[in-house]
Amino acid sequence: MSTTARPAVQNTLSAAELHALFHPRAIAVAGVSSKADGQGNKFIRRLRQGGYQGNIYPIHPHEAELEGLPAYPGLAQTPEPIDYAFIAIPAQGVPDLLAQAGGHVKFAQVMSSGFGEGGRGQTLQTALIHALGTGGVRLLGPNCLGIYSPSAGITFVDSPMGTAGSVGIFSQSGGLSVDIINNGEYRGLRFSGVVSLGNCLDIGPCELLEYYLSDPQTRVIGAYLETVNEGRRFFEALRAARAQKPVVILKGGRTAQGQRAAASHTGSLAGNDRIWKALTAQTGSVLANSLEDFIDTLVAFQSWNPTQPPFDGRVLLFGNGGGASVLASDALGRQDIELPAIKPSTVQALKTLGIPPGASLDNPLDFPANILNRNQERLPERVLRTTVAGERPEIVLLHINLPVILPYRNGALMDELMHMALDLNDSLPQGTRLFLVLRSSGRTVYEAKRQECVSLAMARGIPTFPDLSSAARALGALKKHGRFLRHRGLSGTGAPKP
Amino acid sequence: MSTTARPAVQNTLSAAELHALFHPRAIAVAGVSSKADGQGNKFIRRLRQGGYQGNIYPIHPHEAELEGLPAYPGLAQTPEPIDYAFIAIPAQGVPDLLAQAGGHVKFAQVMSSGFGEGGRGQTLQTALIHALGTGGVRLLGPNCLGIYSPSAGITFVDSPMGTAGSVGIFSQSGGLSVDIINNGEYRGLRFSGVVSLGNCLDIGPCELLEYYLSDPQTRVIGAYLETVNEGRRFFEALRAARAQKPVVILKGGRTAQGQRAAASHTGSLAGNDRIWKALTAQTGSVLANSLEDFIDTLVAFQSWNPTQPPFDGRVLLFGNGGGASVLASDALGRQDIELPAIKPSTVQALKTLGIPPGASLDNPLDFPANILNRNQERLPERVLRTTVAGERPEIVLLHINLPVILPYRNGALMDELMHMALDLNDSLPQGTRLFLVLRSSGRTVYEAKRQECVSLAMARGIPTFPDLSSAARALGALKKHGRFLRHRGLSGTGAPKP
Repeated sequence: MSTTARPAVQNTLSAAELHALFHPRAIAVAGVSSKADGQGNKFIRRLRQGGYQGNIYPIHPHEAELEGLPAYPGLAQTPEPIDYAFIAIPAQGVPDLLAQAGGHVKFAQVMSSGFGEGGRGQTLQTALIHALGTGGVRLLGPNCLGIYSPSAGITFVDSPMGTAGSVGIFSQSGGLSVDIINNGEYRGLRFSGVVSLGNCLDIGPCELLEYYLSDPQTRVIGAYLETVNEGRRFFEALRAARAQKPVVILKGGRTAQGQRAAASHTGSLAGNDRIWKALTAQTGSVLANSLEDFIDTLVAFQSWNPTQPPFDGRVLLFGNGGGASVLASDALGRQDIELPAIKPSTVQALKTLGIPPGASLDNPLDFPANILNRNQERLPERVLRTTVAGERPEIVLLHINLPVILPYRNGALMDELMHMALDLNDSLPQGTRLFLVLRSSGRTVYEAKRQECVSLAMARGIPTFPDLSSAARALGALKKHGRFLRHRGLSGTGAPKP
Repeated sequence: MSTTARPAVQNTLSAAELHALFHPRAIAVAGVSSKADGQGNKFIRRLRQGGYQGNIYPIHPHEAELEGLPAYPGLAQTPEPIDYAFIAIPAQGVPDLLAQAGGHVKFAQVMSSGFGEGGRGQTLQTALIHALGTGGVRLLGPNCLGIYSPSAGITFVDSPMGTAGSVGIFSQSGGLSVDIINNGEYRGLRFSGVVSLGNCLDIGPCELLEYYLSDPQTRVIGAYLETVNEGRRFFEALRAARAQKPVVILKGGRTAQGQRAAASHTGSLAGNDRIWKALTAQTGSVLANSLEDFIDTLVAFQSWNPTQPPFDGRVLLFGNGGGASVLASDALGRQDIELPAIKPSTVQALKTLGIPPGASLDNPLDFPANILNRNQERLPERVLRTTVAGERPEIVLLHINLPVILPYRNGALMDELMHMALDLNDSLPQGTRLFLVLRSSGRTVYEAKRQECVSLAMARGIPTFPDLSSAARALGALKKHGRFLRHRGLSGTGAPKP
């Protein structure tokens, strides 16, 4: 993390001011072509498909109408002030366009590249910074995809607009912000916003972190970072927030080789890995090691209820497959997640249920598929309910191996287990939650069923994971965050524990 | 790893003798029911579907015909000697059945459980060991699924028989051996054999390791282990083999918690993690951390050509998505895999190709999807060929992000990139190989395309990986193995380097 001064000339931007970027009342669009093939045309079509409710004003030097809307020659000429100007014209024209905004535009998002990244366009970058002051505009980008705001109907991806939710993301890579939306929504993430920051000439990670920390819609924050110019400010914002909202950081450029790649990507010097480890440890935030870990950890945190005590790491694992359960016990153990032995009183209660030989009545509870398949009087469900009642684990980790389970009775066993999971989730005692591992081999037949089950689970707010290793890593992140809160005597609600 | 004496009373079994277990000329099957619902019935049906060419003899106390075959009352009564007896009758009957084999049976695989695992059946276990001596039978199991031998048409899974290949597996978990077949074949693994070892009362990890090390069909070995009774013998076999065949070990019970689960699973005390780390480091074998890593590493090793110099860790990464390339550079850096900077002469050659701005001409080579999509005169292919010719990387790691690429021109860009990959692979210079990362979000539409591309790639022997993190871990394993060979002045062919 670098602590050099930011290049931009703007003053601090408050979180309250940033609200208009996520919920703009009027949007201007530059880069709309009469041939309908510009990035601006695409943006307008997405606004309409996404259900954006405000007014849209195409900006064009000479066209009178574009995409069926009246067009205006400049940003200062629209009939009402602009909250959000989407700019996708050739780089050379951007500074003039913004310089002539006349204080009429709150935020401009510049998609165009060629402003210093990769060592090209230093002169244009200087002109752009100057234009912001002249035009009175705050800048997102340049070289960025912009804002994904499901509650406002704004998007930069082609997939159908996702449901609005509580996860706020900012990313110094446009491509990864698309991946986070695509992969995250498949996994049940629902976003309060996803922001592609681009070159961060003005608005950067600090502003977005402060915004999401104060935004009541946002309960979990995720960031992909390559460089943070105002490192001290970033750290102080995290520290002041006392980990009340979990913050997951995916840091690009943590190795020398990654730093070289980052320099080529955003033109910035990425910081020292030790600093990021220290920063996250001191603020109760979490450092993810890969995009996959980042998504898994957000999925776990999204389901976290801050009115419950911080997670202490006590899990009940129920699955089929002895070897898989052993490996999961290892993976959980490495993350400091405990599978407490089942109490003798609970074992006694389990022994009255008529469980056939071959099942393990310890934690992990391991049931071969052929015993699950007998399903005598809903045996798996009775086992789980009895164990949960006796043990009160914080999390029940239910592992279903689709290639093994799906062939039983043409899919009927799989459906029974899924419905058991959904029913169980609805009736868990206070303080116990369900996490679901849906494992597949990759074959389309299993992936199709997995997608169906993931959808069912996410509709009930049950986090799902593709394998036991990824679930273990996500639980490890929950544990780190919970330990931070406990050690400081904090509940998840910001108040000291009673 | 425990070094206590093995419980069985048998003498050493040579690798040559074990050959008959994988290629039996005659098979006896006990546990065939006239109602056609026994495990033996299922086994016979699978033998027929799998194309087994030898004779099959059902064993039954009183039935004369089962599954359309003449049945015999005991193992000693079949018209010819038995190489492989599949036993799936209730545990109580197993010792007597084997005691009366009369030296007529080479190997018995006992699927039945109840012989000491989970603390039940110690008496039966003793009786079983005694029966082996009386009947002159060598035992696989008990409590195991047995043998998967595609070249002989023998299987314990329901999926269609895979193509025979060069990867030999043994596993102390039946469930994981099924996962390894399911997940591995999807990923292009082709097996010389997969053996579920069960309780290892007689045949255990040492015999299988020695067999695969000497088997000319097997070039890569994978093992899931919970406990190895003859630890010294296992170590010596690995050491003597001088890592000429890569050996990947997935060890269950490496944490205290995993050891407790393993004790409950196979009734065995799992060994100390430090011992396994030392054993693999000293023998050039590789320790995998999860089932996913295990499969990824086997996929990478399967493509390893022992006539080539050991892998030194020089990779060219070509992908789309700057952030993804930065994260991949980090992940590779952590595994000691180098992305060497591209030489000035090669950069000069690249600059003559007419590459539009926005692409990075360093390593990683990063091309935004819109530049890939222009595909001017096969630009991506010309870039890759020029770079490979100039740099001669050991491995080209080609990263395709399906959710981003597939929508371009209704899938045409994706198909172009895949065909470019296949063509490139066919014409790579000596010493350069192609590895392919096919990333998806999990949605069925992408998974279906991924399955298609994985099939195309595996038909050409190109290893594929689901994401850049898993590719990095697999390359890290290749590097460890290569470093072991180099440090000892060994080529991959067993001979000292000239």
